[in-house]
Amino acid sequence: MADKKVEAITSMEEDFAQWYTDTVVKADLTGYTSVKGFMVLKPAGYAIWELIQKQLDERFKATGVENVYLPMLIPEGLLQKEKDHVEGFAPEVAWVTHGGLNELQEKLCVRPTSETLFCDFYQKDITSYRDLPKVYNQWCSVVRWEKETRPFLRSREFLWQEGHTAHATEEEAQERTIQMLNVYADFCEEVLAIPVVKGQKTEKEKFAGAVATYTIEALMHDGKALQSGTSHNFGDGFAKAFGVQFTDKDNQLKYVHQTSWGVTTRLIGAIIMVHGDDNGLKLPPRVAPVQVMIVPIQQKKEGVLEKAEELCERLSAISRVKVDATDKSPGFKFAECEMRGVPLRVEIGPRDIENNQCVVVRRDTGEKMTVSIDELENKVVELLETIQKDMLETARAHRDSHTYTAVTWDEFKDTIENRPGFIKAMWCGETECEENIKAETGASTRCMPFEQESLSDVCVCCGKPAKKMVYFGRAY
Amino acid sequence: MADKKVEAITSMEEDFAQWYTDTVVKADLTGYTSVKGFMVLKPAGYAIWELIQKQLDERFKATGVENVYLPMLIPEGLLQKEKDHVEGFAPEVAWVTHGGLNELQEKLCVRPTSETLFCDFYQKDITSYRDLPKVYNQWCSVVRWEKETRPFLRSREFLWQEGHTAHATEEEAQERTIQMLNVYADFCEEVLAIPVVKGQKTEKEKFAGAVATYTIEALMHDGKALQSGTSHNFGDGFAKAFGVQFTDKDNQLKYVHQTSWGVTTRLIGAIIMVHGDDNGLKLPPRVAPVQVMIVPIQQKKEGVLEKAEELCERLSAISRVKVDATDKSPGFKFAECEMRGVPLRVEIGPRDIENNQCVVVRRDTGEKMTVSIDELENKVVELLETIQKDMLETARAHRDSHTYTAVTWDEFKDTIENRPGFIKAMWCGETECEENIKAETGASTRCMPFEQESLSDVCVCCGKPAKKMVYFGRAY
Repeated sequence: MADKKVEAITSMEEDFAQWYTDTVVKADLTGYTSVKGFMVLKPAGYAIWELIQKQLDERFKATGVENVYLPMLIPEGLLQKEKDHVEGFAPEVAWVTHGGLNELQEKLCVRPTSETLFCDFYQKDITSYRDLPKVYNQWCSVVRWEKETRPFLRSREFLWQEGHTAHATEEEAQERTIQMLNVYADFCEEVLAIPVVKGQKTEKEKFAGAVATYTIEALMHDGKALQSGTSHNFGDGFAKAFGVQFTDKDNQLKYVHQTSWGVTTRLIGAIIMVHGDDNGLKLPPRVAPVQVMIVPIQQKKEGVLEKAEELCERLSAISRVKVDATDKSPGFKFAECEMRGVPLRVEIGPRDIENNQCVVVRRDTGEKMTVSIDELENKVVELLETIQKDMLETARAHRDSHTYTAVTWDEFKDTIENRPGFIKAMWCGETECEENIKAETGASTRCMPFEQESLSDVCVCCGKPAKKMVYFGRAY
Repeated sequence: MADKKVEAITSMEEDFAQWYTDTVVKADLTGYTSVKGFMVLKPAGYAIWELIQKQLDERFKATGVENVYLPMLIPEGLLQKEKDHVEGFAPEVAWVTHGGLNELQEKLCVRPTSETLFCDFYQKDITSYRDLPKVYNQWCSVVRWEKETRPFLRSREFLWQEGHTAHATEEEAQERTIQMLNVYADFCEEVLAIPVVKGQKTEKEKFAGAVATYTIEALMHDGKALQSGTSHNFGDGFAKAFGVQFTDKDNQLKYVHQTSWGVTTRLIGAIIMVHGDDNGLKLPPRVAPVQVMIVPIQQKKEGVLEKAEELCERLSAISRVKVDATDKSPGFKFAECEMRGVPLRVEIGPRDIENNQCVVVRRDTGEKMTVSIDELENKVVELLETIQKDMLETARAHRDSHTYTAVTWDEFKDTIENRPGFIKAMWCGETECEENIKAETGASTRCMPFEQESLSDVCVCCGKPAKKMVYFGRAY
């Protein structure tokens, strides 16, 4: 039974994309409806998002963020006010043309992102320096009419948060932009156990309408990169397009400086692809909806289920814990726990009860331990912390051992073909050269990392003087 | 200053509708954008919704509810599968006709409610009795193309939760329908301090596609009723329309029985209209984003702000507390606290510090107390509990003293004209008679309460034999 269930997943080595799809389905994270390109987040998937949301929201609020909710529909005229922005988004929005039984005078798009709505709102809500800063965020879903879709990575609707701030000065906006990037990076490392590279996007890769876009980039198990969160500094461009002005302390009318920043359900895709293995999902304890699954052995024997429930009751004070009392075989339950990424499994049977012990198994390493029942709470607390820490270290080791440097163009091409991962290389700063690199190798500029190194004096591709060290990689 | 701010609200007696609008604006709950019929939930408004969401979600989960997320768009063909349902909703939905640059082959409506999507999903996800029950809920926004809108009470988009369940038997579905109605009723009383009447909707008032609709009805300060939550039993009607079948333990193929239940941001409108007064909002402590506001007196004097911050630090362990250290006058700050409904105000000035005391003021009664600083935590905990309890009792007393009985038609007409409130009266059970009552008096049937009384043998309007005692009332 156990083997059969596991057998149903394609191995990572054989076909990583298929392994991903199999894992999403077998771990019961998403489901299908008749709405093409849209997905259902099932309980096991949505619960991960709830844990992300809760812990990220706490970190936001600790920096002074307040939550709001703005309309889901944007009038065409509003979307068009900022030139770069509308060019970036118009080709991929869904349009509402009829409301009730009537055709609308002005069509409305389902928000693909809400910069324009926040500007419209701020224009009405901000008059004085006393109204600043505005540090608002909303949790919602957005729609982008993608042609090809994959669960969590690309779908026509996804859940996210979008922060939108307005400040009196350029410096304050820039500070907030970097502050939120750091919140994301710390969150990814400390909660999702995913190490990231922080840096700035190139001109070509920056957000439609931004002065500067910053990103956190993570490396998946297959060596491809995933942009995992972005933070944008808009300068006063949107403020000028929307007339968002305030009277400053010196009585002068000035434009505000704005930022926006967001992460999405893509993070769940990152969790799957950074930590998963051929047995399925591996969830870091801090985002595991079930952290401990208790599996009774010979559960029909007197006292076994009762003991399992008693342990569950005790462990519920310190963890998210469940008993699997279904009529499946223990082997099947083990495989299902592994598939769903439950960090710890506790096995308890008649002989264990006799010896006042149970068996504890780590999902991340497979390590099995015999633990005295008297010590169980302490051991579980300790193990959940250890697993969280070890998963980050494992992911970091993988990321580091798959980060290469290329000084010559031949090295670059050889690395991208044969050693999937990040490539650090020098770049001249020209968009044309960046496009050539992408066209020839499929590698895009992931970011200009904050931690710059000097690998050589010249661009890895064109040989002109180098301006920046860049992380390159093929990406999702 | 203080008076000026308060002056700006129309008094309830003068014009309740205008008082409501003024309060919503002055308490800074909502804002405007250029999207007609849609509102912005500003931080003070959204924070109330977050507290509702958190506490209701805990109650849901305690009954076994799991959260999911389904698409926001519904293909036209799916909406049309259940005849009554499409008739009820088609006239008020927004239609997406274009995705990206192309016209869609099939138009999609923005969900006005998600019965059809859940059925489509359940049809694919349920095959055996082992898959039952499904007790799923989602938190999201929905769109209904209303002609006239009012903040929280009626807008083209609103936030809500919608629970959708599937069961093996009729009995289990009915049990869940009533269970969730009770969750809502208890939540309203215990958290929102709003007493409700529980009952069943008449045939005329039930939900499009339901076998039976149950409701909780609350009475606003002006004597008008507000439907505050509903729970529907669908029987197997939707299951038959969508082919949601399962193989039961006896190996027979059967249709599932379904329910749905929801509450919305309307609850915030109820809080405003049940508890508010001529000084603005009055928030029950359990849904007050700020429970205690500390107002420093003569804050420029040495040590005052420091002491205020020290008290804030101490109180933050047991409450949601803030210091108002802005440069407004204390009088203005007091009025603002009242306007925003903060349950407790703590005043601390140089003389208070000297005497190791502070002044504590209740928002609900206006009562002022001098409290020793050593006793402050205990006193605040006690007062917040007392306020929560007293606000419920005050609302209950108002509801009870505005609940009338009418045995004759003259009594009914006289009451509805001269004494706004609930009217309990006997009814024949005929839709035609119900429509007459509405047409002649503006009073609709709110519900057939679970607690039935026999007031007379005949219908209050037509004189035919009475079948049910009904709560009538003019309603929002």
